[in-house]
Amino acid sequence: MAPAGRPGAKKGILERLESGEVVIGDGSFLISLEKRGYVKAGLWTPEAVIEHPDAVRQLHMEFLRAGSNVMQTFTFSASENNMSKWEDVNAACDLAREVAGKGDALVAGGICQTSIYKYHKEEARIKKLFRQQLEVFAWKNVDFLIAEYFEHVEEAVWAVEVLKESDRPVAVTMCIGPEGDMHDTTPRECAVRLVKAGASIVGVNCRFGPETSLKTMELMKEGLERAGLKAHLMVQPLGFHTPDCGKEGFVDLPEYPFGLESRVATRWDIQKYAREAYNLGVRYIGGCCGFEPYHIRAIAEELAPERGFLPPASEKHGSWGSGLDMHTKPWVRARARRDYWENLLPASGRPFCPSLSKPDI
Amino acid sequence: MAPAGRPGAKKGILERLESGEVVIGDGSFLISLEKRGYVKAGLWTPEAVIEHPDAVRQLHMEFLRAGSNVMQTFTFSASENNMSKWEDVNAACDLAREVAGKGDALVAGGICQTSIYKYHKEEARIKKLFRQQLEVFAWKNVDFLIAEYFEHVEEAVWAVEVLKESDRPVAVTMCIGPEGDMHDTTPRECAVRLVKAGASIVGVNCRFGPETSLKTMELMKEGLERAGLKAHLMVQPLGFHTPDCGKEGFVDLPEYPFGLESRVATRWDIQKYAREAYNLGVRYIGGCCGFEPYHIRAIAEELAPERGFLPPASEKHGSWGSGLDMHTKPWVRARARRDYWENLLPASGRPFCPSLSKPDI
Amino acid sequence: MAPAGRPGAKKGILERLESGEVVIGDGSFLISLEKRGYVKAGLWTPEAVIEHPDAVRQLHMEFLRAGSNVMQTFTFSASENNMSKWEDVNAACDLAREVAGKGDALVAGGICQTSIYKYHKEEARIKKLFRQQLEVFAWKNVDFLIAEYFEHVEEAVWAVEVLKESDRPVAVTMCIGPEGDMHDTTPRECAVRLVKAGASIVGVNCRFGPETSLKTMELMKEGLERAGLKAHLMVQPLGFHTPDCGKEGFVDLPEYPFGLESRVATRWDIQKYAREAYNLGVRYIGGCCGFEPYHIRAIAEELAPERGFLPPASEKHGSWGSGLDMHTKPWVRARARRDYWENLLPASGRPFCPSLSKPDI
Amino acid sequence: MAPAGRPGAKKGILERLESGEVVIGDGSFLISLEKRGYVKAGLWTPEAVIEHPDAVRQLHMEFLRAGSNVMQTFTFSASENNMSKWEDVNAACDLAREVAGKGDALVAGGICQTSIYKYHKEEARIKKLFRQQLEVFAWKNVDFLIAEYFEHVEEAVWAVEVLKESDRPVAVTMCIGPEGDMHDTTPRECAVRLVKAGASIVGVNCRFGPETSLKTMELMKEGLERAGLKAHLMVQPLGFHTPDCGKEGFVDLPEYPFGLESRVATRWDIQKYAREAYNLGVRYIGGCCGFEPYHIRAIAEELAPERGFLPPASEKHGSWGSGLDMHTKPWVRARARRDYWENLLPASGRPFCPSLSKPDI
Repeated sequence: MAPAGRPGAKKGILERLESGEVVIGDGSFLISLEKRGYVKAGLWTPEAVIEHPDAVRQLHMEFLRAGSNVMQTFTFSASENNMSKWEDVNAACDLAREVAGKGDALVAGGICQTSIYKYHKEEARIKKLFRQQLEVFAWKNVDFLIAEYFEHVEEAVWAVEVLKESDRPVAVTMCIGPEGDMHDTTPRECAVRLVKAGASIVGVNCRFGPETSLKTMELMKEGLERAGLKAHLMVQPLGFHTPDCGKEGFVDLPEYPFGLESRVATRWDIQKYAREAYNLGVRYIGGCCGFEPYHIRAIAEELAPERGFLPPASEKHGSWGSGLDMHTKPWVRARARRDYWENLLPASGRPFCPSLSKPDI
Repeated sequence: MAPAGRPGAKKGILERLESGEVVIGDGSFLISLEKRGYVKAGLWTPEAVIEHPDAVRQLHMEFLRAGSNVMQTFTFSASENNMSKWEDVNAACDLAREVAGKGDALVAGGICQTSIYKYHKEEARIKKLFRQQLEVFAWKNVDFLIAEYFEHVEEAVWAVEVLKESDRPVAVTMCIGPEGDMHDTTPRECAVRLVKAGASIVGVNCRFGPETSLKTMELMKEGLERAGLKAHLMVQPLGFHTPDCGKEGFVDLPEYPFGLESRVATRWDIQKYAREAYNLGVRYIGGCCGFEPYHIRAIAEELAPERGFLPPASEKHGSWGSGLDMHTKPWVRARARRDYWENLLPASGRPFCPSLSKPDI
Repeated sequence: MAPAGRPGAKKGILERLESGEVVIGDGSFLISLEKRGYVKAGLWTPEAVIEHPDAVRQLHMEFLRAGSNVMQTFTFSASENNMSKWEDVNAACDLAREVAGKGDALVAGGICQTSIYKYHKEEARIKKLFRQQLEVFAWKNVDFLIAEYFEHVEEAVWAVEVLKESDRPVAVTMCIGPEGDMHDTTPRECAVRLVKAGASIVGVNCRFGPETSLKTMELMKEGLERAGLKAHLMVQPLGFHTPDCGKEGFVDLPEYPFGLESRVATRWDIQKYAREAYNLGVRYIGGCCGFEPYHIRAIAEELAPERGFLPPASEKHGSWGSGLDMHTKPWVRARARRDYWENLLPASGRPFCPSLSKPDI
Repeated sequence: MAPAGRPGAKKGILERLESGEVVIGDGSFLISLEKRGYVKAGLWTPEAVIEHPDAVRQLHMEFLRAGSNVMQTFTFSASENNMSKWEDVNAACDLAREVAGKGDALVAGGICQTSIYKYHKEEARIKKLFRQQLEVFAWKNVDFLIAEYFEHVEEAVWAVEVLKESDRPVAVTMCIGPEGDMHDTTPRECAVRLVKAGASIVGVNCRFGPETSLKTMELMKEGLERAGLKAHLMVQPLGFHTPDCGKEGFVDLPEYPFGLESRVATRWDIQKYAREAYNLGVRYIGGCCGFEPYHIRAIAEELAPERGFLPPASEKHGSWGSGLDMHTKPWVRARARRDYWENLLPASGRPFCPSLSKPDI
């Protein structure tokens, strides 16, 4: 058997998707590590890969154990120049590779939109930035590439064009909702342009909750079908319920980023989401901000019948609450059944709070 | 300077409390590790100390970094015989000691109520069980002892009596609300009996949210004052809002344990709680189930003026959201101020759910 | 048969209650007529009896038709001198008598607390005011007397003492909740003092919703039982849900008086209330502010099995929604059943509003 | 001056609208009279005009007093054959005329969709039914005609065509939301077809709350502008908040019709609605189911600056709660100001209920 972690030793992302497998993505790094004390909100930079590698490794491990088939390099950055330092990208790749080697996961190098595009739509300058990151990813031999969190389809197209220069598969996800991108390009049109630019996998990530993101995916799928194009579909939504957010998603909600607790999805909400994503034909299913390891496990458990196996972390989780049959209180034992959790409408315990907010803009 | 981790090298728990210091407890292990994939709900046993020590160590580290002054051994168990195995307690002590040595934290050995008491109120048998655990704690030289999560004051008194056999300080917390214990002993009376039994520190933990637990603390304080007794006060509530729970607390809420997300306290709720606990005279302030590292940090930040310093994890957290002044969206930057977060009434994003539940019993 | 409306021709209030009959009170005059355009909020005075007798008569008619057995003279006043003018009381009696004569209803003369008591606890002066009103009631030959809306038991006792000077039965209701009167007299003690003062019927009205008022009634009943006293019980709560109100009731809620809409009880809530009141032993069951005619009908319908008849207005109302079986939409026809309405948790349609308020004081 | 009530003595509906006046419609008859005990839910027929004319007259009076400029004949029927009897229409006209004569109001004869259309789209048969009603209206000399509550634009067009046979102005309102009619005709197209058919006034009534109805009006207005057509705009929405209803409106909400209480709009909600309707260019502003007299008064008060006068019922209502400055409690007096009521987010008092419902279909 090939040594774990050697590129090529595992089935690649496209082989998996083309054979009909479900690929489970990973979850939230920035927000999870913010709560654990290693990321600063506002800047949202991944210096923890250098400063606290144990914390980052542990989170990777938890996602792997929960069933993730992809370890995304923790290289996202919302900082001003939007470019992680070379050392950071390097360290992030090593951590992702180390953990991926302990299970059935691939390493994906991730880039995201620049802070430049909004002010200067300079293709050459922006592509150069993407190319710099790509060089590290190529050197570290990642398994495939993800361009994610794009608000403007044009910049996402540039990213795809750069990533295609490597011979690795390219996935691209935009952080848009059903209303489309910041220039009012519809999700249908976005999907078409990205696939035409060379992406093999297309979808959305971040900014909107599971329900809303699936609406956007439906539109992307329609766009591709109408254009006669083929691509794999991918969805990595927030782990927060955001029925009330506007075009720019959850950053406009008054609760962002320090009051989102009551919006966190339950594991049952995520099972429902995983099932609906699957039924829609999406086969790369993961999460973004707010997705904790147990949310990823919920995807893996919901789709266990299709996939034929449970993730390691299910050792510590009875399907549909079945573990509760060992609880000391009989009325809690009575909750060890699917219909109980499937139909629960959880109370917020916050009677002085509303159920929806008005976005700031 | 004495090497970190050597018992006695640090100021003891009573010295701290007697000099008026605030001691910050730690937070949730069972529920946090359940979400990370290492604990099984229902059984709620701490075998992770053996099976996945890295995961337990990492969580200890996060609490230490967030400001905890106490590393409680992860020895809680709600299993049938209610007694962790010798190897587990041993490993738990080592992990707690290892991390405590990296900062200004003490190690506390923790025992909790037995599953026997409910059916057989046999003092000798139960005390023997407590004594077995105490032996390991003594051997591992923990700094002090905590008897926690008692529903019946009589059993808590027995625990205190056993723990007093060691020469270490004894803290005791019951998992009761303002209505008192399972035999209708009032919080006032519980506090009196526990202090008379020899506890130096007395209070509540688990089962009820911050607001409710402070109401119980107020009653305990009154009880001690009326009886002319002195003891240090300690509170380690849930990190969930539970205004609707009955006498047995959150286990009776329909959301327990897999639908509690929307009840999770924000960091601002916890700052408010920490201030109120402080104003009430409580000086040992921590959390229980649902308290994540950032909640502990919130206690440390709220009480930084009194304590004179911030915890390490505040490197990654601007006070009252001040870090948001670096955000790319101007309306998010506008949230970088205290009154914004202090007055926010966070929406649940769940308009089809109620705000309160009816407990099962 | 005696002509309708001739005093004495009907069974008196005490005969009814002593024979075990349920007596149904009437509902809201001030708030209902405010919404119809005839009463001014703030002053809350009943000059409509002179200015718009048709409007007052119509409302009396609606309550009669809904099943009320009592036409209370519309003489309530919260104005500064708290005394309706002689002409007003006179006109109010005539209207009540006229409508009572059209059905099986008695006329009750009503007095309420003075605005003087709060500042000057002068028994003689206050009793003189009560006596002036009593004289009109006696002259107009009302069937019995109700002293209602008292915040202080002492003043209520004075009212009972004055009303007893007439030879008519005296009912007395305080506007208190389970916490007792403004001087912290408990409901138990209030009931005892009022019955000792000579009231035949005792209970609560206004200020608190149905659920809360029944809690107060339970305490009053207990007080009488412990004191070995006998009296008929009477309850006339708000038609609003007020689980969040404090000691002074709904006037302290931020929604009072122009934003109470979303708190209005459904007819099903009132059926539940009527059943619980009956089970508690209350036999004079009516309503106060917020009780519209259909709420009174709901009492009459719920207790129709015990009483043996339906009120006239039930011609226009199918029991438990049965009239819906004629609706044009099939899914609305499917709502023509008891369990549908009994279990409905009605949505507010206000996702930006909370479910509870904090009282102003 | 011409005697009140003589047709022609007053400025006609089109004269008013053409001179830029605001015409205030009336409110809810069926639902209001159901609550008063005179209409049966499900059938929703107006036999009260014969059986209980005093009750109907009183409600007309209340709307007149609240500021209505139109007394609509109470001839609406949702019964199987959908045709009120001749006697009923006759009596309804007399009641409307009698009350209209007491103030500045016109009489409008109202017809609505038939129950036939849904199954048999027979133009001749349906027009014949409309013509029968029109004959009575012509004979009773109503001032103008309203065709309202149409779910299908084709049937509404037929109604307009019939009503145009009389020489009276014709207003037409559909009970549709922004998604359009039951055959998916958009509001833009509906408006165009109705004006082309001869309607002078066009808009929506019933089925949807104020906010939703104004969205539909915006679309209708756009449709007319794009088609270069001119017509007066009219809106008579529900007095209930219905953000959650689907294409068919409130009948599909689980709360319809006996659990709608918590959705009732406050007077302040209605002032906001009136202002927004006015700003949109709508000049015939009224209400439908759920609009009580005080809601109509709220329209008249909001638009008093434009109209130059207040309605009679404002004698009993201080603008923006100003009457509360006479209340006995100081904190209630403090609510006598506009910003208090304008910003109030009223609590439901129902913490166990959700804020939104899922429509049945």
